[in-house]
Amino acid sequence: MEIQGEDDYFVKNTPPKNIEEVEKKTKEFLNFQIEKDRRVVLVTSGGTTVPLENQTVRFVDNFSAGTRGSASVEYFIEQGYAVIFLYRQHSLRPYSRHYSHSKNCFLDMLDIDNDNIIVNNKYNSFMKIILEKYKKAKAENLLLEIDFFTVKDYFFYLNKITKILSTIEEKAMYYLAAAVSDFFIPPERMVEHKIQSRAGGLNLSLDQVPKFLKPLVSEWAPKGLIVSFKLETDPDLLISKARQALDRYGHQIVIGNMLLTRKRVVHFITKDAERKIEMSDEELKNGMEIETKIISELKIKHDNWIEQSKN
Amino acid sequence: MEIQGEDDYFVKNTPPKNIEEVEKKTKEFLNFQIEKDRRVVLVTSGGTTVPLENQTVRFVDNFSAGTRGSASVEYFIEQGYAVIFLYRQHSLRPYSRHYSHSKNCFLDMLDIDNDNIIVNNKYNSFMKIILEKYKKAKAENLLLEIDFFTVKDYFFYLNKITKILSTIEEKAMYYLAAAVSDFFIPPERMVEHKIQSRAGGLNLSLDQVPKFLKPLVSEWAPKGLIVSFKLETDPDLLISKARQALDRYGHQIVIGNMLLTRKRVVHFITKDAERKIEMSDEELKNGMEIETKIISELKIKHDNWIEQSKN
Repeated sequence: MEIQGEDDYFVKNTPPKNIEEVEKKTKEFLNFQIEKDRRVVLVTSGGTTVPLENQTVRFVDNFSAGTRGSASVEYFIEQGYAVIFLYRQHSLRPYSRHYSHSKNCFLDMLDIDNDNIIVNNKYNSFMKIILEKYKKAKAENLLLEIDFFTVKDYFFYLNKITKILSTIEEKAMYYLAAAVSDFFIPPERMVEHKIQSRAGGLNLSLDQVPKFLKPLVSEWAPKGLIVSFKLETDPDLLISKARQALDRYGHQIVIGNMLLTRKRVVHFITKDAERKIEMSDEELKNGMEIETKIISELKIKHDNWIEQSKN
Repeated sequence: MEIQGEDDYFVKNTPPKNIEEVEKKTKEFLNFQIEKDRRVVLVTSGGTTVPLENQTVRFVDNFSAGTRGSASVEYFIEQGYAVIFLYRQHSLRPYSRHYSHSKNCFLDMLDIDNDNIIVNNKYNSFMKIILEKYKKAKAENLLLEIDFFTVKDYFFYLNKITKILSTIEEKAMYYLAAAVSDFFIPPERMVEHKIQSRAGGLNLSLDQVPKFLKPLVSEWAPKGLIVSFKLETDPDLLISKARQALDRYGHQIVIGNMLLTRKRVVHFITKDAERKIEMSDEELKNGMEIETKIISELKIKHDNWIEQSKN
């Protein structure tokens, strides 16, 4: 059962409680962007989880802090896009990512000045740049954020949002940077309570998750520009696996990256070409991020995609 | 193999790279507190992860945002303790927890006022209280924070820190709030590269992790006051599992809590007694946290523990 039918999955599993609210918000957001004649990109971000119990204490997770996705949002907005950001709960978010509580804790940047709390001079100028961008994105309604936790909820949201977004056809881009689980425990095999510690150890049997990129490309959003990601740890597999995904799902671009060098090198793999995008030591030292190059490149590809559709 | 020998585990597994640095910091911190004649508590917090590959893309995780641990630190400091906070990377930390990037994002609280960035009046008074406590904790060197990601690194740090802390004997408390994995994949069975998606699904076989609470109580820190936690989802199991842990490991207190009510009710289980600590709706509405009651109670128990040891 490599490709489980879409209907089957969405019937067998319970939708997230707020699915209708998400649907409503997405439609409102999209209508606003249509009026402004903006392009819209869906950015997915962070790892997805696979619960091992119904009352979940344990789960299988994917490594992802959400850096790629959250950084990319900022550059998409700079390029004139409106963004729907579908992100894993507690993973990094655009703008605030520069001040996560584990790094650059903002409390360290604050001084008490009589009755006021002010940002220390040392941090002031960088924060002002971030804050101005953030306030602009909010004021101009350029960003809609929706969070998920489990891979199941991710699929429900992805399905719903993609179908809504597909109404703007070529003007929508799908930038699927979330690290989606490959395996899950189907509902009928899930235990109710916390699995107890026991000397015998634990044997888990997980099924492959449905490959929803296939219906996304062919049915949910057939006219959009679709970009997926491939993360590997074995360099011998990267390009071949990326090309395989492109052949299998029939979308436009796979961005391949290695776990250890993902902030320095990515590969753009398209049907006819392969291109490496790289950061120099100098660029990295200056705090430049590879996502700025990725998004500039995609903007051009999207221009072409829209242009082609007119012929 | 329920209890794997301590030496065996710490020989078979590779220590975290910075273990010597952590050792040095802990000793310096402890020496400073000894001079100030302070009590010291080790607070562990957050979930631990079990990697499924050496070059880790996937892992098994435990549900824990680190709320219990990070909140408790603030109340311990209010009670005069110095705290070593051993926490899961990216989980909540004391003080900054009030402004995580996913809730109460601090960027929403800032205004640009000419060249300054200031905290909006609406948020000013609450933040001032937090900020003053935070600055005091730093200025008086009351808090040492050490982060981990995998259960293996957690065990190495726990072992090292506990042994150092045990030199102050009864004046040390161990408040083990981290949600420690019960199962892991031993190094000899770990695959190197990312497990590939495949139609056949995935079978995982995990061993039980060594129960280090046993040597911690009997060998690493035999004179300290040791508090462990028991989280369950099945109410019929909670008290019996907590009492079982107390019998098995021989320490002083188990705090039992249910997944769904953990912010409202906890049970203190000791050798001779059982006591429920509860929050009223009124208290919860006023933003009071159950950890303030837990820590007040533990402070009294610690007073008695130290007093008894003098006889």
